[in-house]
This record gives sequence, structure tokens and C-alpha cells, in this order.
Amino acid sequence: MLFGTLPFAAQQPDQLYTASRQQLDVTKVILAQQAAWNTGDLDRYVSFYKNAQDTEAVLAGPVIGWEAIRKAYRINFPNRDAMGSIEESEIAVRALGDNFALATGKYHLMRSKKAGGDAFGTFTQIFEKTDAGWQIIFSQNT
Amino acid sequence: MLFGTLPFAAQQPDQLYTASRQQLDVTKVILAQQAAWNTGDLDRYVSFYKNAQDTEAVLAGPVIGWEAIRKAYRINFPNRDAMGSIEESEIAVRALGDNFALATGKYHLMRSKKAGGDAFGTFTQIFEKTDAGWQIIFSQNT
Repeated sequence: MLFGTLPFAAQQPDQLYTASRQQLDVTKVILAQQAAWNTGDLDRYVSFYKNAQDTEAVLAGPVIGWEAIRKAYRINFPNRDAMGSIEESEIAVRALGDNFALATGKYHLMRSKKAGGDAFGTFTQIFEKTDAGWQIIFSQNT
Repeated sequence: MLFGTLPFAAQQPDQLYTASRQQLDVTKVILAQQAAWNTGDLDRYVSFYKNAQDTEAVLAGPVIGWEAIRKAYRINFPNRDAMGSIEESEIAVRALGDNFALATGKYHLMRSKKAGGDAFGTFTQIFEKTDAGWQIIFSQNT
């Protein structure tokens, strides 16, 4: 089941369209991460990635391991201006069994021309349910 | 654990680097799908996608549902020349619990200039273990 995807919901007019607990919990994490970005708190933003050697973020290229991901974000977004603010939309969450979930959506990064300018694209994230809550184990922006 | 990712393996010189049955099975499906493409068998290629309403392929944009995916491939690759041949590399497979898996890698599409020319990029696929074997439920090319 996709969450918040109108075309799919529209195909099932007779079905009540409800989100699972899992979909809601993952969506909350996505929104919390977005909020961290928009307050310029890059450390908190990166804390939503699982602190593991095999966590992967595909930025310009694949970055593997939590420490490497943190470093890559710090290099690419050295200050508040470089971060700008981000708005995510069309967030869709799909369960992959009980302990994993796939999230997709669109992002719009807004910032001054001097700081790099606006950027648009899609994001794809895989979450794992851990003792610390739902955490990102794979992330890709296009 | 990532499969076939040298940098990660290199970080663990003391550990024997072995692939799980799940990683091997998914890799076999990826290679079988590639082989279908390279013999021009688009129907077989698409058959590796799970025949479900919520199967998703992100091509130029998101395409949702197996029938829509089949149609999109037929429109974009109407004949053998348009398909060309594909070579996948750096295939990495990671388990997401027992019944799901994430696969990433690079592709190189080779074809004549007249048919659209070469293309390079990365692929990200999520597989589900079904009664019909491991099938793609989400796919994204960049």
C-alpha cells in the first residue's frame, strides 16, 4: 500500500483509505528530519541515519557508513546558508515486512543564488525499525 | 551486509566475505533479467516485476502498477534496436528482513546513435520473496 498517493487511492473507491501505524510512524520521522534541516541542525538531521557501517546515502555518488555520510553532509552543507530550507511533498510510505519500510517523495530545496540556488528532485529512503525507532539505512536523492 | 562492494569488504580484512543465500538468489534474478533484456525479450524482462497494483517503477517519472509498467516499457523500447543491450556492474544486494531485499548497481545501455545512443546510470531495486520467487516491487533508474 502506498500512503498519500492519490492515483492509487482513486483506483479503489470502495475501500476506506487508511494508513497503517507503521506508515504514520515513518512519515513522522521524515517530517522530523525535515524540521531538523529547516532549523539548520545538520547533526540532528544526520542522526536519523542509522549509525552503522553499512548505512548508505547516494548523494553525488554512493557514500557508505554513518561517519562518511555525516562528513559528506558537513562538506556539502558547511553553513546555514548552504542548507537553506527544504520542503518535501508527495511522501509515500510502504511497508517491507514489519521491520523495514520504503519512503519516496519529492523535495524542493530553497536557498539564495549565492548559496547554490534552489534544487528540485525526488528522494527514496529505506527505513529500519531499531531500538532507537525508525532509522534510515539507505537514501538516494535524484 | 553489502554484496560485492569492495570498499566495504576491504574494511573488514579479518572477516571472511561471504554472500548469503538471499543475496545470491536476488543476484541471480538480476542477471536473469539482464539476460532477458539482452535477448530482446521485453515481456520476460517485465515479468520480473511483481504483477501487482502497487508495484512501482520510477522511469522518467513514477509509474505505478504492473500493467502501467509494462506499457511504459513497450512505449519507450518499441523494438530490438531501441533496447540495445545492457551491462550491469557493481551489483550490491542487502537483505531487508527475510522477505525483502535492496539491490543497487550501475548500468550501461549500449545502442546505436540512431536508436537513441548509449546511456549510463545507477539502478535501485527492491525485491520481495513471493511464491513465484524474488520479484521487483520497486525500481528506480537514475
